[in-house]
Amino acid sequence: MPNPHTALPVVGMVGGGQLARMTQQAAIALGIEFRVLADSPIDSAALVAANTTVGDYRDFEDLAAFAATCDVVTFDHEHVPLSHVEKLTSSGVLIYPGAHALPYVQDKIRMRERLAQLGMPVPAWAAVETVEDVEQFASEHGWPVVAKAASGGYDGKGVWLLRSSDDARPLLARGDVRLFVEENVAFTRELAALVARTPSGNSTAWPIVETVQSDGVCVEVVAPAPTLDDAKAQAAQQLALRIADELDVVGLLAVELFDRPGGVVVNELAMRPHNSGHWTIDGSTTSQFEQHLRAVLDWPLGDTAATAPVTVMSNVLGGDDGNAGLATRVPDVLDDPDLHLHLYGKGVRPGRKIGHVNICGDDVATLRARATRAADHLRRGAAT
Amino acid sequence: MPNPHTALPVVGMVGGGQLARMTQQAAIALGIEFRVLADSPIDSAALVAANTTVGDYRDFEDLAAFAATCDVVTFDHEHVPLSHVEKLTSSGVLIYPGAHALPYVQDKIRMRERLAQLGMPVPAWAAVETVEDVEQFASEHGWPVVAKAASGGYDGKGVWLLRSSDDARPLLARGDVRLFVEENVAFTRELAALVARTPSGNSTAWPIVETVQSDGVCVEVVAPAPTLDDAKAQAAQQLALRIADELDVVGLLAVELFDRPGGVVVNELAMRPHNSGHWTIDGSTTSQFEQHLRAVLDWPLGDTAATAPVTVMSNVLGGDDGNAGLATRVPDVLDDPDLHLHLYGKGVRPGRKIGHVNICGDDVATLRARATRAADHLRRGAAT
Repeated sequence: MPNPHTALPVVGMVGGGQLARMTQQAAIALGIEFRVLADSPIDSAALVAANTTVGDYRDFEDLAAFAATCDVVTFDHEHVPLSHVEKLTSSGVLIYPGAHALPYVQDKIRMRERLAQLGMPVPAWAAVETVEDVEQFASEHGWPVVAKAASGGYDGKGVWLLRSSDDARPLLARGDVRLFVEENVAFTRELAALVARTPSGNSTAWPIVETVQSDGVCVEVVAPAPTLDDAKAQAAQQLALRIADELDVVGLLAVELFDRPGGVVVNELAMRPHNSGHWTIDGSTTSQFEQHLRAVLDWPLGDTAATAPVTVMSNVLGGDDGNAGLATRVPDVLDDPDLHLHLYGKGVRPGRKIGHVNICGDDVATLRARATRAADHLRRGAAT
Repeated sequence: MPNPHTALPVVGMVGGGQLARMTQQAAIALGIEFRVLADSPIDSAALVAANTTVGDYRDFEDLAAFAATCDVVTFDHEHVPLSHVEKLTSSGVLIYPGAHALPYVQDKIRMRERLAQLGMPVPAWAAVETVEDVEQFASEHGWPVVAKAASGGYDGKGVWLLRSSDDARPLLARGDVRLFVEENVAFTRELAALVARTPSGNSTAWPIVETVQSDGVCVEVVAPAPTLDDAKAQAAQQLALRIADELDVVGLLAVELFDRPGGVVVNELAMRPHNSGHWTIDGSTTSQFEQHLRAVLDWPLGDTAATAPVTVMSNVLGGDDGNAGLATRVPDVLDDPDLHLHLYGKGVRPGRKIGHVNICGDDVATLRARATRAADHLRRGAAT
């Protein structure tokens, strides 16, 4: 049911976080109607999108009622119960990424099994249920090992570095989380590949970026990844495009990669706009948010070229002086006339991702310094 | 009263057209709350902005109630009664552009008087009340003369080319419109200067652009204006910056110019985001919509440099096969992967401005051809 005023299609996004908020900006330009199913009226996207429904994505009735108002449904997170997605699909709802692709982001054990089947480079790994399983893995690959929750983790949550059996014991004793372990990859840096794919199978890849994490949270992205040789960059793009094809992903696919001298290995997948692609809003011909909409609509994809030699993205994390503190500092950082500010309208809590800044130019070091200065200033608490 | 969730300021825009719609996109990034006073719930901006109030800007109570929810009030058109603006200002409302600046865009006779006083280059002109006044002017400056309504004109409406007294007679006989006449300027092309100014008096200018009109409607903008020599470009920027200062404009000021071999003369002024600045969304570090928000908030202004050697903007006009026709053609034009589409969500009527496309690159002729092809295809009616 296209919008009655414009005859253009209606895209619904399940989840009202910052990804939906920024997708709304892209939807405005395309002229399509964009609807959001948000948990609360003060969700990041709900604060700005005209067509917000407050409901619970875990409740099938809420989800089905929302889907009934849309031509295509997509997600700003990966937590919608798979059984709901399957049921909607079988009732004729277009929903992307689909029920056959989502398991690989909802369950990291299934993702690793599948990627290994496909011959993709992945770290050595094993599903574990007992301390003995962990010890067995460590005897082959050495301590420390990295333990991860099969589902539900994000921003460093659900990841544990185990240095010995003593570290493993309390984690395995919890019994509330399916776990696997993987080798502690000796990477030189982290990269990310971002691609988009349509239901017709058309796909595009943005330049490979370098991502910088701190305490498991992405704090900085440099696009394109500095000093990455062309062959490795192209291999990483091809790897992501192939995963998108093999898993029949529709919409965006982000592939987080560990860079090692011998080549990259896959760390994580996400099937939605991704933090590693926020730079595209100001640094690429087509932003990841517009591309996601084009993809789920099966429209032609936009050009993914970088529009500047370098774009640096820094995440803005909450400081310790709340919203009022942040608000007083916003005009300060705009003193850098090249800075692109993106705030999410979220309540400020220490360390919470509340926005990002982008800056485009020529010199990596200078741009990193300017982006970091802005992000740090916005985070600064009253006490510092 | 800043937004209670973010502590960031609330900007209200009177008018729910496409300018408010595109300002909403910029407001989302800045994290501020953006409120719209729209005539109808299906106004261009009302379709997308979460905080829309439907009301009548001609009704002081509606306007005052809206203003009471905002920290700063601004406009997407220039039709708010001046007496209302004065009354709001005297009750302490921050409203930009202010009551002392608005008369110069609400009344073109006052604008020409003031610019002449300031020694600005303007065409020869005279207010006229009778056919004899027109004949007197023509005897000095020759036929044809251009007659204009002092207020209410836009997109070619309110402008008449008078070739003789016979043309003048019916117009002067109407008696429902205050008129002036001006020389039919022998211009080589039309240019536009766009600047922004804060209440503190900071200001910035974008590169001078060339605008192309058809039947009085802007159909194309090329940024920067091709083959414009630096001295003339800088003079045009300085002229616009000086007008902004002298008239104490806050927010955006667009100055439409006639280019003549001897120099530019001022044609029209607008104190709001302007069609000649739509290219900035994709072709400048800071878009006119973001800059307008920064200006009315008295925040630092962003950089106005072009981010590509050339950006071409083509307006999309409605075809004769309505919304359904347009909707089927939208995916077609996205086949050009560099095209930036901006649709306004407006009902399609033949010749109505319903969107624009931007395209950035190196070669003026190629970019014009690609932008025109897309705009023409979107306009094409079923019969053509």
